[in-house]
Amino acid sequence: MTLAKAYAATAATAPLGPYQFERRAVGPHDVQIEIAYCGICHSDLHQVRNEWGNSTYPMVPGHEIVGRVTAVGAHVKGFKVGDLAGVGCLVDSCRTCPSCQRQLEQFCEKGAAFSYNSTEMDRKTPTQGGYSSSIVTDEAFVLKISPKLDLAAAAPLLCAGITTYSPLRHWKTKAGDKVGVVGLGGLGHMAVKLAAAMGAEVTMLSTSKSKEADARKLGAHHFGLTSDDATFKKLAGHFDLIIDTISAPHDYNKYLGLLRVEGSMVLLGVPPEPTPVSAFPLIMGRRSLSGSLIGGIAETQEMLDFCAEHNIVSDIELIPVQQVNEAYERMLKNDVRYRFVLDMKTL
Amino acid sequence: MTLAKAYAATAATAPLGPYQFERRAVGPHDVQIEIAYCGICHSDLHQVRNEWGNSTYPMVPGHEIVGRVTAVGAHVKGFKVGDLAGVGCLVDSCRTCPSCQRQLEQFCEKGAAFSYNSTEMDRKTPTQGGYSSSIVTDEAFVLKISPKLDLAAAAPLLCAGITTYSPLRHWKTKAGDKVGVVGLGGLGHMAVKLAAAMGAEVTMLSTSKSKEADARKLGAHHFGLTSDDATFKKLAGHFDLIIDTISAPHDYNKYLGLLRVEGSMVLLGVPPEPTPVSAFPLIMGRRSLSGSLIGGIAETQEMLDFCAEHNIVSDIELIPVQQVNEAYERMLKNDVRYRFVLDMKTL
Repeated sequence: MTLAKAYAATAATAPLGPYQFERRAVGPHDVQIEIAYCGICHSDLHQVRNEWGNSTYPMVPGHEIVGRVTAVGAHVKGFKVGDLAGVGCLVDSCRTCPSCQRQLEQFCEKGAAFSYNSTEMDRKTPTQGGYSSSIVTDEAFVLKISPKLDLAAAAPLLCAGITTYSPLRHWKTKAGDKVGVVGLGGLGHMAVKLAAAMGAEVTMLSTSKSKEADARKLGAHHFGLTSDDATFKKLAGHFDLIIDTISAPHDYNKYLGLLRVEGSMVLLGVPPEPTPVSAFPLIMGRRSLSGSLIGGIAETQEMLDFCAEHNIVSDIELIPVQQVNEAYERMLKNDVRYRFVLDMKTL
Repeated sequence: MTLAKAYAATAATAPLGPYQFERRAVGPHDVQIEIAYCGICHSDLHQVRNEWGNSTYPMVPGHEIVGRVTAVGAHVKGFKVGDLAGVGCLVDSCRTCPSCQRQLEQFCEKGAAFSYNSTEMDRKTPTQGGYSSSIVTDEAFVLKISPKLDLAAAAPLLCAGITTYSPLRHWKTKAGDKVGVVGLGGLGHMAVKLAAAMGAEVTMLSTSKSKEADARKLGAHHFGLTSDDATFKKLAGHFDLIIDTISAPHDYNKYLGLLRVEGSMVLLGVPPEPTPVSAFPLIMGRRSLSGSLIGGIAETQEMLDFCAEHNIVSDIELIPVQQVNEAYERMLKNDVRYRFVLDMKTL
C-alpha cells in the first residue's frame, strides 16, 4: 500500500481540505499512476455537497485524472512505467453482463465501480478520486493519453470529453450534419469542438449573446439566441442532433421543434425537476428525446485518440489544489472558461 | 364528377347526418373506389368536434376506407375495376421533399393532403373522407387489400394497423424482443397482434385487470397491471420497446424505467397536457422517448401484405352508418372491442 496525499470533503457542509489515505498495493493487473492533473466536474460539487443524497465521507472527488505510470503489475500488458495515462469516471465493472459485453460499462447491470463516492466491485471498499497524488487502477479501466496533447488540458476529456463524444458518435454525426449544442459550459464547449472536428455544421444555442464570440472561436459556425423566440421560428426543423448540456430548468418542447424529421435531442444534464414534454413534437416527425451518460472504456480511448489526431483539448484554468473551494463557488456562477483543472504538484 | 352519399358533420356541436357532395371526375392517375366499409378512428371524433381547433365544415370523416375499384384513369397501372382497394389517412403529398423521397409522406415538408378536414395539394380543394359511398384518389395513395382478409375487419388496418406497425418496424422488432404495449384499445389491440406476429414476447400493460383475458386472446404473452406499483419493480429494465397508445395523462417516467439499456418508448397518443419527464431514466441507460405518426404509403402496403400473410385483422363491431353518433358516445366510454366499422351499404 502507498500513502496518498489528497484533498477531501469530510461532510456535506464542510469545505474540502488536506487528507491522507492508503492506495492499495499494485496487483497483477493494476497500473499505479502519479496524478499530474485532475479536472473539476460539476458532479464533484454535487456529490461533495450530497445533492444526490448518496454521498459517503471522507470523499476524495475527481474523475478527470491524468498523470504518469509509476508501477505496473506483473500481468499488465498495455502500460509501462513512464507512460502517460488517465482514469475517468469508471474504475471497474462486472465485465460479464450484456452492457459490459457491449462495452457499455457505464451501464453495467451490477452497477459499475465509479472513481469516487462509490465502491470497488466487492461493494465494500470505498473508491477515492483524483484530487490526490496517486491512483491504482486495473489496466482495463486505464486510458492511454497521447504525448501530443497538453496534459493538463487533456484531463477534462476523461469526463467532459467522453460525455459529449459518445452521443455524437452514437447518433452517427458525420460531415455536413447540423448539430445544435445547448449551453456553453464545460460540456458545451467540448461538444462544439468535437462536433466541428467531425465535420458537422455546429450551432451554439445559448440564452446569452455574450457567448457568441467564444462559441465561434471554439468552432461553432452559427449562433442561436434562445432568449429570442424568433430563433425557434428560424431554426424550426433544422437540426439532425441537439446536444443539451443544461441542468437548469428549460423548455424541451421548444428545442424538439428545432429537430428535422427523425432528429434526436440528447440530454446530458439533469434539471432539478421533471420537464413537461408534449407528445406532439415527438409524434410529428418521429423525433426522439434521449439521454446519454459518459461512455464505455473502449469509446473513451477512441475519443482520446480522436482528440490527439485533431489536437483537441479543453479550455482550462489551471489552479493550485488549495483553491478548490473557491473554484466551486466560481463554478456555481459559471465563472470559468470552461473547466478548472487542479495542478496536483501543488498538493 | 359523381354524386356521393355520405354522413357529415356540419358544425362542431351538431351530430353527424346524411349529406351529399360531388367526388371529382376520375383523372388519368385516379382510382375510383366504391366504399364498402369505413372504420371509426378516435381522431374522427376529435376533428368532428373541433377539439384540435382546425376543423372545417361540412366534414365527412373517415380514413380507414376499403372497397372495390369501380373506375381507373388511363394511366393507372396498379389497379383495375373489381380489385379490392383501400385509402388511409393520406391522399396526396408533394412527392419531392426529403421526407416524401424517403417514403415518409406523413411528414411531407409541404404538409401532406389528409383524407378529410384537409385540402388537396392545391391547398384549396377540401378533402372528404370515407363515411361516404365512394372516393377518387391518385393511385399512388391507394392500397391493395388481399381478398384473403375479412374486408370489414381489414378497414382499421389503414390507420390503427399502420400506426402500430410502423414503430414496431422502425425500431426493428424481431423474434424474441420484449415489447410492452400500454393500453388496450383500437391501437393497443393491433400492436399486440402485430408484435406477436413478428415473434416478439408481448406484455400488455394496463390499469385494468379485466383486460388480461382479452389481451392474452389477442396474443399477449404476459400482463402487467399498471395500477400496481409492484409491476414497475418487477419489470424494471425489461423491455426493448414500449408502444404507448394512451392519450389520457399518465407518468411516462415509470414506463421509461421499464426499458432496457438503449430501449425506446414510442408515443402514439397525445395527452391533453405536456407530461413531466425526468432526464434521469433517459440518461441512465441511453433510453429514448419518441413519437410515431401513421406510416408512409409503401410501409402501409407492406403492413397490409404482412397482415394478409399472418391473417391479421382488427376485432371490430360492424354497425350501420345511422349509428355513428351513438358509436362516438360509446367510444368515449371505451365501450368497443376494439374498433367500430361502418357498413357503407346501409347509407
